[in-house]
Amino acid sequence: MKAVNTIARMSTLVRMLKKEGKTIGFVPTMGYLHDGHLSLVKAAEKHTDVVVMSVFVNPAQFGPNEDFDKYPRDPKRDEVMAAQAGVDIIFCPRSSEMYSEGYSTCVTVEGLSQVMCGRSRPEHFRGVTTVVAKLFGIVKPDIAYFGQKDAQQAAIIKKMASDLNMDTEIKMMPIVRETDGLAMSSRNLYLSDAQRRDATVLYRALKRAESLIFAGERKASVIKEDMKKMIVQKPAAKIDYVAIVNPCDLKDLEIIAKDALVALAVNFGKTRLIDNIIVEV
Amino acid sequence: MKAVNTIARMSTLVRMLKKEGKTIGFVPTMGYLHDGHLSLVKAAEKHTDVVVMSVFVNPAQFGPNEDFDKYPRDPKRDEVMAAQAGVDIIFCPRSSEMYSEGYSTCVTVEGLSQVMCGRSRPEHFRGVTTVVAKLFGIVKPDIAYFGQKDAQQAAIIKKMASDLNMDTEIKMMPIVRETDGLAMSSRNLYLSDAQRRDATVLYRALKRAESLIFAGERKASVIKEDMKKMIVQKPAAKIDYVAIVNPCDLKDLEIIAKDALVALAVNFGKTRLIDNIIVEV
Repeated sequence: MKAVNTIARMSTLVRMLKKEGKTIGFVPTMGYLHDGHLSLVKAAEKHTDVVVMSVFVNPAQFGPNEDFDKYPRDPKRDEVMAAQAGVDIIFCPRSSEMYSEGYSTCVTVEGLSQVMCGRSRPEHFRGVTTVVAKLFGIVKPDIAYFGQKDAQQAAIIKKMASDLNMDTEIKMMPIVRETDGLAMSSRNLYLSDAQRRDATVLYRALKRAESLIFAGERKASVIKEDMKKMIVQKPAAKIDYVAIVNPCDLKDLEIIAKDALVALAVNFGKTRLIDNIIVEV
Repeated sequence: MKAVNTIARMSTLVRMLKKEGKTIGFVPTMGYLHDGHLSLVKAAEKHTDVVVMSVFVNPAQFGPNEDFDKYPRDPKRDEVMAAQAGVDIIFCPRSSEMYSEGYSTCVTVEGLSQVMCGRSRPEHFRGVTTVVAKLFGIVKPDIAYFGQKDAQQAAIIKKMASDLNMDTEIKMMPIVRETDGLAMSSRNLYLSDAQRRDATVLYRALKRAESLIFAGERKASVIKEDMKKMIVQKPAAKIDYVAIVNPCDLKDLEIIAKDALVALAVNFGKTRLIDNIIVEV
């Protein structure tokens, strides 16, 4: 595995790979890798010749009172895990090179970025789309892989790539979960033991929604109320949102008529967890 | 010359050209070609293997009360002129394909887009950067050519390409002028005979600024006042702005210490003309 720290070096490598006719699979991450990330690497290995992973804790997608400073970082561990998983090039640019002095461009996807997580994190997705546009510019992937845990992010990036005629296919891969159902996330590290136990309610609430739908319930409001009742039984849980939306345009569904994305964000103390499930009707 | 009307067809051609190792020079235009555009084609021919010209009157860069509807269009004439000038592929996408239903992404360059022309055309440059990002996504040019008449546009696009790590070099080529000095523009067509005569004051004011600087004047305010006095002598001329700025970051200069972009926008009736000159000190 090659480790690359500068944009110039990464661009040179990409130019060489393209000349050789190699296809590039890309897994952008903020590091502190877990099995969720590694499942994306496995998918990329299957579909493309060369797997590039980026590790970059992107300041632009954190709000002023969010956890940018304390976001977990362990570059050495990431390198070992990436190499073992089959990454060919790990790209860890410096923030000072990604956003050099006078940086002033952003990419915005209207609409999709304002709902769900966008309500409590108003500038988050603009930071995400901007850095992903930059990374796509540098890495020029044929296919880029995103986890379904961030389903809204994946929908937004898909829209950006399509709207801006980027030559990159966006693939969203299934959520990887701990044995008790909690979606894997670098932020799970923040949880106290008690919060960690309570946090399993999220997946149970999503599974509950799924069984209600399978049992014939079609009113989103009824399902959401049921989920909220389950979640608030855990005293540490503070609901940010529970949403049932169209998986593509993220518009609220009142009546579930076809595929539905059931998604939630819940705070446990200072830790905000998200999770979701796509129910095919 | 190939004429292409769909994004899919253009993408296929680009993919073939890249496979053959050909370099692509790109001249984006809104059509109604004049010698200014054709000088960009000549430059592209010199530097790159294949010259692609786009003709697209981009609705996103016109304000609600601007001249989108009456902007001059003559696709047949454009095709003949482009072919004669040496364009290899002319790309004329449909608006309904460029901005299909639900389109919602934009690219913004902050700062540079708010000054000068940005003051009276607040959404103009966002429309420009968005469509250029799209066109770059489709055409994947090695070099793209822009006229200095739109010096602010060229500076903004250069910033966008650099900030978003686009693999396209931006070249700004000199202004082409009529024999009496008026900068060539598709909008000159709108001028009445009297306005057309009066409009020559713009270049004379710019040359006047140049000679003042060459004579040792370094105070931007003095030079701007002098220019404004010249221009307002033409009763039809309504000044939007006269600016003396750094050519890269477009920041106002008080004292001229090195290269300066002297730029202006002046309305003649409903027609807004822009022009500029770069003075090397």
